[in-house]
Amino acid sequence: MTLTQEQRLILDTVRKLAKEVLYPLAPEYDREGRYPWPQLRALAELGFLGMTTPEEWGGAGLDSVTWALALEEIAAADPSVAVIVSVTSGLPQYMLLRFGTEAQRRKYLLPLARGEWIGAFCLTEPQAGSDPASLRAEARRVPGGFLLNGVKSWITSAGQAQLYVVMARTEAGISAFLVEKDTPGLSFGPPEEKMGLHAAHTAEVRLEEVFVPEENLLGAEGRGLAYALAGLDSGRVGVAAQAVGIARGAFEIARAYADEREQFGKKLREHQAIAFKIADMHVGIAAARALVLEAARKKDSGERFTLEASAAKLFASGVAVEVTREAVQVLGGYGYHRDYRVERYYRDAKVTEIYEGTSEIQRHIIARELYR
Amino acid sequence: MTLTQEQRLILDTVRKLAKEVLYPLAPEYDREGRYPWPQLRALAELGFLGMTTPEEWGGAGLDSVTWALALEEIAAADPSVAVIVSVTSGLPQYMLLRFGTEAQRRKYLLPLARGEWIGAFCLTEPQAGSDPASLRAEARRVPGGFLLNGVKSWITSAGQAQLYVVMARTEAGISAFLVEKDTPGLSFGPPEEKMGLHAAHTAEVRLEEVFVPEENLLGAEGRGLAYALAGLDSGRVGVAAQAVGIARGAFEIARAYADEREQFGKKLREHQAIAFKIADMHVGIAAARALVLEAARKKDSGERFTLEASAAKLFASGVAVEVTREAVQVLGGYGYHRDYRVERYYRDAKVTEIYEGTSEIQRHIIARELYR
Amino acid sequence: MTLTQEQRLILDTVRKLAKEVLYPLAPEYDREGRYPWPQLRALAELGFLGMTTPEEWGGAGLDSVTWALALEEIAAADPSVAVIVSVTSGLPQYMLLRFGTEAQRRKYLLPLARGEWIGAFCLTEPQAGSDPASLRAEARRVPGGFLLNGVKSWITSAGQAQLYVVMARTEAGISAFLVEKDTPGLSFGPPEEKMGLHAAHTAEVRLEEVFVPEENLLGAEGRGLAYALAGLDSGRVGVAAQAVGIARGAFEIARAYADEREQFGKKLREHQAIAFKIADMHVGIAAARALVLEAARKKDSGERFTLEASAAKLFASGVAVEVTREAVQVLGGYGYHRDYRVERYYRDAKVTEIYEGTSEIQRHIIARELYR
Amino acid sequence: MTLTQEQRLILDTVRKLAKEVLYPLAPEYDREGRYPWPQLRALAELGFLGMTTPEEWGGAGLDSVTWALALEEIAAADPSVAVIVSVTSGLPQYMLLRFGTEAQRRKYLLPLARGEWIGAFCLTEPQAGSDPASLRAEARRVPGGFLLNGVKSWITSAGQAQLYVVMARTEAGISAFLVEKDTPGLSFGPPEEKMGLHAAHTAEVRLEEVFVPEENLLGAEGRGLAYALAGLDSGRVGVAAQAVGIARGAFEIARAYADEREQFGKKLREHQAIAFKIADMHVGIAAARALVLEAARKKDSGERFTLEASAAKLFASGVAVEVTREAVQVLGGYGYHRDYRVERYYRDAKVTEIYEGTSEIQRHIIARELYR
Repeated sequence: MTLTQEQRLILDTVRKLAKEVLYPLAPEYDREGRYPWPQLRALAELGFLGMTTPEEWGGAGLDSVTWALALEEIAAADPSVAVIVSVTSGLPQYMLLRFGTEAQRRKYLLPLARGEWIGAFCLTEPQAGSDPASLRAEARRVPGGFLLNGVKSWITSAGQAQLYVVMARTEAGISAFLVEKDTPGLSFGPPEEKMGLHAAHTAEVRLEEVFVPEENLLGAEGRGLAYALAGLDSGRVGVAAQAVGIARGAFEIARAYADEREQFGKKLREHQAIAFKIADMHVGIAAARALVLEAARKKDSGERFTLEASAAKLFASGVAVEVTREAVQVLGGYGYHRDYRVERYYRDAKVTEIYEGTSEIQRHIIARELYR
Repeated sequence: MTLTQEQRLILDTVRKLAKEVLYPLAPEYDREGRYPWPQLRALAELGFLGMTTPEEWGGAGLDSVTWALALEEIAAADPSVAVIVSVTSGLPQYMLLRFGTEAQRRKYLLPLARGEWIGAFCLTEPQAGSDPASLRAEARRVPGGFLLNGVKSWITSAGQAQLYVVMARTEAGISAFLVEKDTPGLSFGPPEEKMGLHAAHTAEVRLEEVFVPEENLLGAEGRGLAYALAGLDSGRVGVAAQAVGIARGAFEIARAYADEREQFGKKLREHQAIAFKIADMHVGIAAARALVLEAARKKDSGERFTLEASAAKLFASGVAVEVTREAVQVLGGYGYHRDYRVERYYRDAKVTEIYEGTSEIQRHIIARELYR
Repeated sequence: MTLTQEQRLILDTVRKLAKEVLYPLAPEYDREGRYPWPQLRALAELGFLGMTTPEEWGGAGLDSVTWALALEEIAAADPSVAVIVSVTSGLPQYMLLRFGTEAQRRKYLLPLARGEWIGAFCLTEPQAGSDPASLRAEARRVPGGFLLNGVKSWITSAGQAQLYVVMARTEAGISAFLVEKDTPGLSFGPPEEKMGLHAAHTAEVRLEEVFVPEENLLGAEGRGLAYALAGLDSGRVGVAAQAVGIARGAFEIARAYADEREQFGKKLREHQAIAFKIADMHVGIAAARALVLEAARKKDSGERFTLEASAAKLFASGVAVEVTREAVQVLGGYGYHRDYRVERYYRDAKVTEIYEGTSEIQRHIIARELYR
Repeated sequence: MTLTQEQRLILDTVRKLAKEVLYPLAPEYDREGRYPWPQLRALAELGFLGMTTPEEWGGAGLDSVTWALALEEIAAADPSVAVIVSVTSGLPQYMLLRFGTEAQRRKYLLPLARGEWIGAFCLTEPQAGSDPASLRAEARRVPGGFLLNGVKSWITSAGQAQLYVVMARTEAGISAFLVEKDTPGLSFGPPEEKMGLHAAHTAEVRLEEVFVPEENLLGAEGRGLAYALAGLDSGRVGVAAQAVGIARGAFEIARAYADEREQFGKKLREHQAIAFKIADMHVGIAAARALVLEAARKKDSGERFTLEASAAKLFASGVAVEVTREAVQVLGGYGYHRDYRVERYYRDAKVTEIYEGTSEIQRHIIARELYR
């Protein structure tokens, strides 16, 4: 990958911040399940919460390649922070930029891109993990707007985010609504007790007679699912980049450990089985990153990138699970211990095969795209 | 597998206890990291803490096949309980029975086999995970016995067990010692913070000038490593059985879930990708169990079963990791949630590739045995 | 596995014959695509073409466990011979024994079991690889019998076998017919040019107005598919045993090669990556064999063994492909060369994932059985 | 990947030639084991035998990215032709360009780049597959030059190529020599009987007192191994591109077949298990190609690309074996038949894990590079 001077500078900046702020705080926030506000503020100050949003809308105006590489750096240091950044930038900001009105952008995109606000994406429901057709949340038209009712589940940043993009049924089909956090009738469940990503709160979003004014309908009525799917293409590149970062974070610890620890009279890395594991881990990560960058380039080109996004997400999430498994193995007993960090990457990695479309959904999409 | 009437009865009993006692308590003990004394007492009452020890020594006098199948049942309900049972029966009791004096058996094997005591096996040291040659703990000969010094790490049941079989260097080589919990100079670290198996406490065992009387030397001086390795052959069959149980516990939840949950208008199990996953999970478990039983039969036959034990452990632990990964996947978001149990099996499974010899050590042993 | 004295004797006999007759002839028969009549005659003389058929019907009256282990030995020496033996014994003889009349058994089972005749199983058609529902061959009732028309494809031993069990549609459904080789209207295509198993001729069987007398209807009219599926359960255990043999044949060459060849100053097997490969190959084979024996034992018990047969076939065929791949790798360039045999096992192995039901069909069956 | 207009034109040209000339002839040349001179001449006419050699030296002066993509196209149509092209351009031409004198380039690079000559690379010896340190061929200094003795094995195009770059020991170490085909004392074994790549002749090169004049020493005496290793970095990118082509060739047949063939009442591709296979095959190929292009770009940048070349070769060759395995599976019985081509890709694929450094060698190199 040939990067421009500017891209390199940005990546150096994020790497520095990741090393100095995210990495040291990650274990504590994981253990305590605390939402990483200080880390997000540090990222916001440098413009990393609105990376791909144009400068006129408060963002950094970066290309998707740089965005993906920056997300990898963030995830390598703290996967929980990475998913929050990926969602707020890849979904709400992306949808607002593509489908929002000037007024909506001014009101919502600006604070999101500046990182003053965090955005959430509300598609999944308890009974409809990967199947939007069975979506039940409803938006009933009333004078001046809509009344929303329904339950959304597994929502990243729920209860913390200030803006919620909510997909709900109207007469015209599924529509997308912009809902502010303090809107009456909007409430949140407690953070779900997950296997990993403890700092990235995930919770239910409950809507009871939530009034949303006409001007907060995003784009055309009945087009919400199409917008959400477009958002998911983008979001999947983000998750894929996060997965690469998770794999790399674990890999770096394993590589260093194999260079220090001795067994049977020589360094671990001088044992062929360990050296070969390290090699395979590297190759998997390199291939995953290459697919992520391919999807990002395609997105930047303006062409349809559904296939590339799903391919990157499917492959990178698999690599994340396998590489973190091997990283645990390289560290042996220490790999199973909280103090050595790799167990956290192992727990965090698994969800990348699940959220924003399971690996099965990605395979379905890829096969469909291959026969278009 | 054709089982005798008696074997079936025993397995029915353990299955009932697993269902009624172990399974309901497992989540709470995992969350709180509590050592499962009530569960162990319930098992002890029915003779399941000394399964393979002869009845004359307080045990149930069962064959290893029944022991392995019972361990699978226990692990399917609660993997933490299974490892405690596997260690106390597969290592200390096995070593006492094979290498102990009549007096040692009376004093230690009896309470262990009756389940009044729990036994621990102390080989690993901080700097010598899988490499016994670099063992540093020392036993210095003094009048009437030995003074032991050293640190043992990753010891299952440390701080809870009443008997510790400790490997330490003497002039004649590595020797095995029987050390009671309340011996002066013996102390324990806090339970390690592990990724899983939270209820099965693992901690450091520290020995500072611990006096061990002559009569507590197990077998011949300098033969301790050979005894420990013999114990490990047996212990590995136990870990392999535990791994099969972990896989099966997760599989059963996934199988049931796929039969209930609907997506895209039909049951999950009617989606070919899910049905095929369920099939592959079953086959992996069946193959792993078959290898465990082969090792158990070989052990019962009195022949060397090092190859079979390592093969079973290597294969079954890999199956445990892969099947639990797929079980999480079948449940999707719910698979990543604590309330659905499979995430716990996923976390628990990983350690079976590490303890009592990593998968790399097993491959090393298998290759060595194949060229004997 | 504890074998009886008799089982050991039989296996010693087949091992000797495999070593002295099958193994030396295998390369030449593969290269020239010659049907292995001399080898089959040698096997017949010792009773190995009717192993599981009772002695009263000309067979050896062995249990299925012995049959499976013998097939493994045969396949380890020559996979082409093994499939012929597996088919003639696992399908036509098995079906005749279970569903045939006394007269049919006398006329056909006797010569088949004695190995004077070879039997073929004709279910697959060009347009219906794995889907019996779309079977097109027809049997029209005429005075005294039936007239059969249709084309059967991929028939093992077609053109060489003396008896063909043909599944064809009658008014009552699919029925099974016993058709002798020299029946007018029966003809055969040339041997298919396959990737492997060159000595085991596979060809089309063409039926044009073939008259089959009433007494050659096997069992009840309309029950043919059920009989064929029962036959396939049995046949799959045979294919699974063959797959284990293929894997073992390649493994043994690789194991020996790694013990002789030196590279970088030491034996190949002293390189950890090679040693670990050897270990993994062994474990895969051991697990596959264990599943085969489990299916064979279940079959011998008289219980339904559909699940076990499909599990064994699925797993063992996968192991065959993977182990032969690794065997080629261990030999490096020589592994790719005809003179070193392992390339032939690699080519032969692949078909075990395809015939008598592809791996996809096996997964389908297994999932179905798991939810019965 | 954004390609320039020129790159697209070149790839269109090679694709056309592949489709019209290579693809139709491939089966026949494979069956008969004929060296593909007509195909090579057709490629030469369009400049495809000297793609990366500068125009001043008779080549097309293309970048390595275009070269790799063109090799993929060639391999997708005929893997045997691809390896011949990869070797003659990636090894002898690359070495002559980097290390040759002006006179050597004029005499040898020109006809090679124009495709009038084919070049061979002679490093491997019977006892030294992957271990150059044990190389035995010797070059004894005599007046005016050297006398070469030794045996080289597994040499692509041996007996057909006009120029042989031969590595042999001199006093100063391993040196590289340019040897013309008709040099007295140079002879060739018969083509090896390989599992696949039948049209790409591979044979022994025997040197008996072969006189090579001083001016045919390539570069500095004693530097031959360094040159060969540099050549191998380049050659590995070629093999990796070939592997991607093999996978893609098989994939395209499988994809089309799944769109035509029906089973159980619907198209194969409408069965989820097949659709998901197709998806996975695509993703593997995309990832492999991405790594190949990364290595090619690195090579073009002038930086060290050893790590990237080995990573691409390791990963792409694995994908080739796995994708062709699945392609055979998608076609079922037809996949095992010569007439459907995929079995040939399956046989051809395996050697990409072996030649120009086995996968084990690649892992060794990658691990070494990661700790530099």
